[in-house]
Amino acid sequence: MMMRTIDWTDEKGCITIIDQTALPSRLTVLDIYDVDGLCEAILKLRVRGAPALGAAGGFGVALLARTLKAQKFQDYIGCLRDGADKLKRVRPTAVNLSWGTERVLRRALTGKDRGEVEALALDEAKALADEDVARCKAIGEHGASLLKDGDTVLTHCNAGRLACVDWGTALGVVRTAVAKGKSIKVISCETRPLNQGSRITCWELMEDGIPVTLITDSMAGHVMRAGRVDCVIVGADRIVQDAVFNKIGTYALSVLAKAHNTPFYVAAPLSTFDLSRKEKDVVIEERSPDELRYWNGSPIAPAGVPAYNPAFDATPMENITAIITEQGIMKPPLAPHIR
Amino acid sequence: MMMRTIDWTDEKGCITIIDQTALPSRLTVLDIYDVDGLCEAILKLRVRGAPALGAAGGFGVALLARTLKAQKFQDYIGCLRDGADKLKRVRPTAVNLSWGTERVLRRALTGKDRGEVEALALDEAKALADEDVARCKAIGEHGASLLKDGDTVLTHCNAGRLACVDWGTALGVVRTAVAKGKSIKVISCETRPLNQGSRITCWELMEDGIPVTLITDSMAGHVMRAGRVDCVIVGADRIVQDAVFNKIGTYALSVLAKAHNTPFYVAAPLSTFDLSRKEKDVVIEERSPDELRYWNGSPIAPAGVPAYNPAFDATPMENITAIITEQGIMKPPLAPHIR
Repeated sequence: MMMRTIDWTDEKGCITIIDQTALPSRLTVLDIYDVDGLCEAILKLRVRGAPALGAAGGFGVALLARTLKAQKFQDYIGCLRDGADKLKRVRPTAVNLSWGTERVLRRALTGKDRGEVEALALDEAKALADEDVARCKAIGEHGASLLKDGDTVLTHCNAGRLACVDWGTALGVVRTAVAKGKSIKVISCETRPLNQGSRITCWELMEDGIPVTLITDSMAGHVMRAGRVDCVIVGADRIVQDAVFNKIGTYALSVLAKAHNTPFYVAAPLSTFDLSRKEKDVVIEERSPDELRYWNGSPIAPAGVPAYNPAFDATPMENITAIITEQGIMKPPLAPHIR
Repeated sequence: MMMRTIDWTDEKGCITIIDQTALPSRLTVLDIYDVDGLCEAILKLRVRGAPALGAAGGFGVALLARTLKAQKFQDYIGCLRDGADKLKRVRPTAVNLSWGTERVLRRALTGKDRGEVEALALDEAKALADEDVARCKAIGEHGASLLKDGDTVLTHCNAGRLACVDWGTALGVVRTAVAKGKSIKVISCETRPLNQGSRITCWELMEDGIPVTLITDSMAGHVMRAGRVDCVIVGADRIVQDAVFNKIGTYALSVLAKAHNTPFYVAAPLSTFDLSRKEKDVVIEERSPDELRYWNGSPIAPAGVPAYNPAFDATPMENITAIITEQGIMKPPLAPHIR
């Protein structure tokens, strides 16, 4: 069995992650001993994927609780809140980072002294990580019912084990279907500009022996038109009342799926839902134009060319066939599902 | 004034090209003295773009005519035909390569001795190249009428000066509109896997001072939905009765344009038309999976991952608002235009 994407190492008192920027060339494990290191790892996408960021937020609060230097308990709590706030803002679009951070902070703040705060934070972060695995398994169970033996699933970015603590959301659905004996093939869009599809999704699936074919993002329409795609399954970074925010390119896939009468599924835990908001309330993170100008330090565009680099886009609910959650399958509109 | 993309250098008796694989880092000029060198340059995309390949085919025959070693005239003509056949097959989807090769071969074969064959081939190849520039200017004139002052044009791949002998087809339309005083902005899709959009289109437009913004192919839907695109203009590699073959990703853009009520234009000379055929009669060139697995020699996907790499796709006529040619603007269906 593979190690978890993100975990706590008790012997060392640190967070341990698989450094996803080193894939597929090397499987590198990083120990993170302070929250600045964690922020760097999140910003550089060493750890990424909405559910994994939830666990990162949680473990980040546990790490903060252990490493803060404030002497007085009141100062310590103040610093803990400030540190958690800073952590949440590292990647603003993915709601799970905030969600995980806040959940663990809330539990930690019930502690009456520093020792109790530390213990509660770690306990809650570990519980959150364990629950993430259980949630992915439940998403897999529900989603697998949508796949037929022999189906080909097109996916974008990485909503696999490495986007979560383990198992995966979109790829969790594929894994569960395969575990139930169905033969499933995957077409993985490379997912520019950071190639999470080619680097991470392909690597994960090859490790598991699930057949995968890599395509460029621009080929998705062509393979759908050729009748080679039975459904699209993607993850989500934030689900609001009227839209799903996910990796840039998801929206275009939803339009293409609709045009080809191909079911378009989103697989995501309920922690990804942010139903107090609408699309217009969410700011999409823009990343550095250099991600489009350079690859591995060598130029792939003229120096200084203006480049637009939103990390996410919004897919309106009307383009989504169903959302697969740990509690079952919901069909938009979401209004009736909102309690 | 910039040198032509492909030209004949009389003093040296060779073809001279801009090596497009070196862009945007360096402007490198290559002299090509034999047809094997030309085939390599075409295969490696040192010279690419349908109209430029027409000129390459033409100059290739001129080069063959000068360099063949056969002694008897009959053998010489046989070798000329064989060499031309080989040249045409280097990139089978782009019809212009065949068209340019055949046109110059036909003229050359009217020669009564080797000297005459050589002279006729070179004369015809030069005429073809000059006509290509004139055709692009005419396409620009017709197409510019479709653009309003302040418009933003989204384009894919490179259908610019470097895809032609000079001026360009899709970008020729933009250049002519700008030359007429209209303010036009371009959004350039990077065009995976070989990044002709980021490497070549951005470079060309920056050289000309035309505002350009680079995006990944996956962002096209997002920018259209945001209302940032007034029309899409692309080139074409082959236009058959029912479809336009162009760089992979063109089809998806056509679906996205339709979904957003955005005009979708194809700019191409009549030499790109192959109206004796339908989509089903054309084989799409598949290139090496390594183009998706490596960038500049470094892996961006797991070693050996299966990858599908068609160089082109087919856009059905119903997704095309109009085709801009040197003789005017045609609206599909093409049947009434076919003489």
